[in-house]
Amino acid sequence: MKALVFHGPGKRSWEDKPQPAIEKPTDAVVRITHTTICGTDLHILKGDVPAVTEGRTLGHEGVGVVEEVGDGVSNIRVGDKVLISCVTSCGRCDYCKRGIYAHCRDGGWILGHLIDGTQAEYVRIPHADNSLYTLPSGMDPAAAVMLSDILPTGHEIGTLNGEVKLGDTVAIVGAGPIGLAAVMTSRFYSPARIIMIDPDENRLAMARMLGATDTIARDPIETIKELTNGEGVDVAMEAVGIPETFDICQSIIRAGGNIANIGVHGKSVEFRLQDLWIKNITVRTGLVSTNTIPVLMKVVESGDVKPKELVTHQLRLDEIEKAYDIFGQAAKEKAIKMLLTAE
Amino acid sequence: MKALVFHGPGKRSWEDKPQPAIEKPTDAVVRITHTTICGTDLHILKGDVPAVTEGRTLGHEGVGVVEEVGDGVSNIRVGDKVLISCVTSCGRCDYCKRGIYAHCRDGGWILGHLIDGTQAEYVRIPHADNSLYTLPSGMDPAAAVMLSDILPTGHEIGTLNGEVKLGDTVAIVGAGPIGLAAVMTSRFYSPARIIMIDPDENRLAMARMLGATDTIARDPIETIKELTNGEGVDVAMEAVGIPETFDICQSIIRAGGNIANIGVHGKSVEFRLQDLWIKNITVRTGLVSTNTIPVLMKVVESGDVKPKELVTHQLRLDEIEKAYDIFGQAAKEKAIKMLLTAE
Repeated sequence: MKALVFHGPGKRSWEDKPQPAIEKPTDAVVRITHTTICGTDLHILKGDVPAVTEGRTLGHEGVGVVEEVGDGVSNIRVGDKVLISCVTSCGRCDYCKRGIYAHCRDGGWILGHLIDGTQAEYVRIPHADNSLYTLPSGMDPAAAVMLSDILPTGHEIGTLNGEVKLGDTVAIVGAGPIGLAAVMTSRFYSPARIIMIDPDENRLAMARMLGATDTIARDPIETIKELTNGEGVDVAMEAVGIPETFDICQSIIRAGGNIANIGVHGKSVEFRLQDLWIKNITVRTGLVSTNTIPVLMKVVESGDVKPKELVTHQLRLDEIEKAYDIFGQAAKEKAIKMLLTAE
Repeated sequence: MKALVFHGPGKRSWEDKPQPAIEKPTDAVVRITHTTICGTDLHILKGDVPAVTEGRTLGHEGVGVVEEVGDGVSNIRVGDKVLISCVTSCGRCDYCKRGIYAHCRDGGWILGHLIDGTQAEYVRIPHADNSLYTLPSGMDPAAAVMLSDILPTGHEIGTLNGEVKLGDTVAIVGAGPIGLAAVMTSRFYSPARIIMIDPDENRLAMARMLGATDTIARDPIETIKELTNGEGVDVAMEAVGIPETFDICQSIIRAGGNIANIGVHGKSVEFRLQDLWIKNITVRTGLVSTNTIPVLMKVVESGDVKPKELVTHQLRLDEIEKAYDIFGQAAKEKAIKMLLTAE
């Protein structure tokens, strides 16, 4: 089969690789029909994630058809159309029992990281019963693939960790795919305002299309002060992963507010406890557990959210190298999510 | 009357001052029978809290007898024995309606800060109906005065913000009065282990007496790793207010755990988001709202907690300057809470 293989920092190729097989009774092998590229894949290619070794197939998002299952798999059958969660979970360990699949003792984020991933014609999925979701009939697989990672991450690590609620003023720093997913999922809880902060006017237009009530390209801290009568926001979401954007969040949060950190950070930030100790704020971090995939599927089915709106480019899976080239210059190419299809 | 007056950094005196009177219909004047000194008072004396101006009477903790009430006060009567909350709250603003009395629009921490405080023979209490609590008959006022600040702070900002629950492993960094109050109030929720970290052996002995199951004087990060099989703790409480102790908390917290910052910080801390973004942790900060005073009174009445155990020194109110001298060398003097009485 063909797969997108990492060969050390800056090097990748779409090349031949042995087709994966069942290794444990709880595995399934899935033929990929739809996949996409995550900002995390670009981080890996830069060499920022040293746990990813040479020869690894990248990718942790995908939809496909079950080709083979191990003897221990009972919920998933050969021929099922399935959504692959970016997080693998056994469902039985102490973390899984608390719903924190992100820290599963025999899983977590392993696809395209510690084991071969979904940017390939076939992928092996461990703990298939808990890590695959059968697609409802009629669900557009191009919408479903946004539920592997991006939409649950925006929902769980942005919206739920930020405790977005009726009437809130929410600010989201960073209008990349995750920040935009945070806009879409914040709307479920009816905040009064969703303010998107990003220097890219094209991405701000996308944010407005998806439901942002206000957008800010420059001087976010001063502008938020004006917009909120000096009070600050109830919820601030960090969706970039650098100290500067975390700093915006801690500067605009009101007393009693919540900061949800969604960004993947490479260095520490200066946390201004001299100002914040008295402000009764909550800061949450996290990797997605994807345990809201089933409920998000229902919302997609109802038509209340249209994750396909995040797809700006569609290519064939065997054009994935070209897709990486485009996504690597996302701002210039006006790219949000790249959809790759193999059927 | 006599009062302990701040005269700029390093200067204080027990001196004559006009007796306070009712200024607004919602005020009460209380004759102080019991008060104490907080670590925050020492910070003010060092000049760390510039909002405190020369001539201010210090103190935000106290028990006394109501001497006079304004026309708008209905729950409190002249002659009532009352507990004074360290936080003044109108009960009517948006923050009060959310239970965040700490950020009351016409209150918050103002006593001994923005208005004259409780280290005096008399004190004026604004919003008396919401800021004073009638003492249950039979409650020892020396126990009650620990409910003005120290016990609610340990409870709300340590134990509740840390979400201490059945079976948890809790670590508390700093065995001062607040850290010890966190030990006492953590026990309400039956954690499996309460680990106190402090270099002072005398304070560690106090922590063990109050219910700590383990105490650590040196190498806390390594020792916690050994104690928890490398997992870290479910809850870490910062009860000092310096970068080094916050750093211990972020180094020992397990995935899915909660850091409760109780300490008053004077400078920013290095927050290691490069390690913590993936760990699904929660960090909370806050000034106490004291809205758990009523329930803490019930627990004190039942005998399940004995806050008087925190009192190491008892002096007369007119000896308060000597009390400050002792408290200023708390470690050497083995001082935790100084009780000052005027009856």
